[in-house]
Amino acid sequence: MSTAIGQYRYTKDKPSLLARMKRIEGQARGIQRMLEEDRYCIDIIQQLTALSGAADKVSLLILQGHIEGCVTNAIREQHGEAHIKELIETLRKAMRR
Amino acid sequence: MSTAIGQYRYTKDKPSLLARMKRIEGQARGIQRMLEEDRYCIDIIQQLTALSGAADKVSLLILQGHIEGCVTNAIREQHGEAHIKELIETLRKAMRR
Amino acid sequence: MSTAIGQYRYTKDKPSLLARMKRIEGQARGIQRMLEEDRYCIDIIQQLTALSGAADKVSLLILQGHIEGCVTNAIREQHGEAHIKELIETLRKAMRR
Amino acid sequence: MSTAIGQYRYTKDKPSLLARMKRIEGQARGIQRMLEEDRYCIDIIQQLTALSGAADKVSLLILQGHIEGCVTNAIREQHGEAHIKELIETLRKAMRR
Repeated sequence: MSTAIGQYRYTKDKPSLLARMKRIEGQARGIQRMLEEDRYCIDIIQQLTALSGAADKVSLLILQGHIEGCVTNAIREQHGEAHIKELIETLRKAMRR
Repeated sequence: MSTAIGQYRYTKDKPSLLARMKRIEGQARGIQRMLEEDRYCIDIIQQLTALSGAADKVSLLILQGHIEGCVTNAIREQHGEAHIKELIETLRKAMRR
Repeated sequence: MSTAIGQYRYTKDKPSLLARMKRIEGQARGIQRMLEEDRYCIDIIQQLTALSGAADKVSLLILQGHIEGCVTNAIREQHGEAHIKELIETLRKAMRR
Repeated sequence: MSTAIGQYRYTKDKPSLLARMKRIEGQARGIQRMLEEDRYCIDIIQQLTALSGAADKVSLLILQGHIEGCVTNAIREQHGEAHIKELIETLRKAMRR
């Protein structure tokens, strides 16, 4: 269900999405440092919760671009069904249900 | 509520926890690459869901060590209340409620 | 952003959605009974997790109908933007991010 | 791993927990009414998110009582291991990881 390269709506937000992922990468490194320095468990868990929340935030942003772009186009071209099914399946996994 | 360095129970799992965080760092880098290569939105979201799940898994492992170590010790030494309160507050944030 | 009554796509699934909600209502009553009978905490929490999961499942089903119905129609009629914004906001709340 | 009836710490909060479950039961009935009245999908999903959040809140309250009561006692009596393992398993399911 892919489309031609560069067509995805998230392209316009790419610098901001990349910056967010760069920050998540930094958080992952920071948590390794905390483990190495034997930092307090609860402080580490808080950082992990923040990291996990930041990843979900990026998911939502890409999802929005996906619905505004790919799904909208597919619906206009009368073949939205498969995209909507795929979208719901993705949400189901993201919500773990 | 911290304790002397090296006393945390997760210390014994440190190599495995560090390896997990290293993998999460790699996932964060992989997602940046996917964004740069204009990969399909849904594929990127799946990777983000995996990353977020991996981070929550590390939280659970550290939490287990924390309860087996710090909280257990505090309860034995008759000052468990503050630790339990802190634990519940951490769970509340992790479950976003 | 509502539409004329009876137009929602979930209408066709109404009997099944109502049956699911009836079951959730029964689960809520069952948990009250467990509390009254002083049942084991962990058993009660498991029932609560099941109830919460069942509610999220109904959300996903209605969401699917909403995207296939309202959102699809709005996109076809060239006014999808507000619906997509509302949809993302709803997902954000459901995922608590 | 159960204990004698009436020994659970949540017993003292029972009236408040029962009131919360009564309210959740009412929310489940309210959502059935919304479905029957063909109310707007997004409004129904918001109610479902509220219901699911209320159930998770009750879980956290019972969990707190469980840790303050059963788990604390078990640790004091030198057989905390099984309770902690059961607790972590319950958290894992509640967080769906």
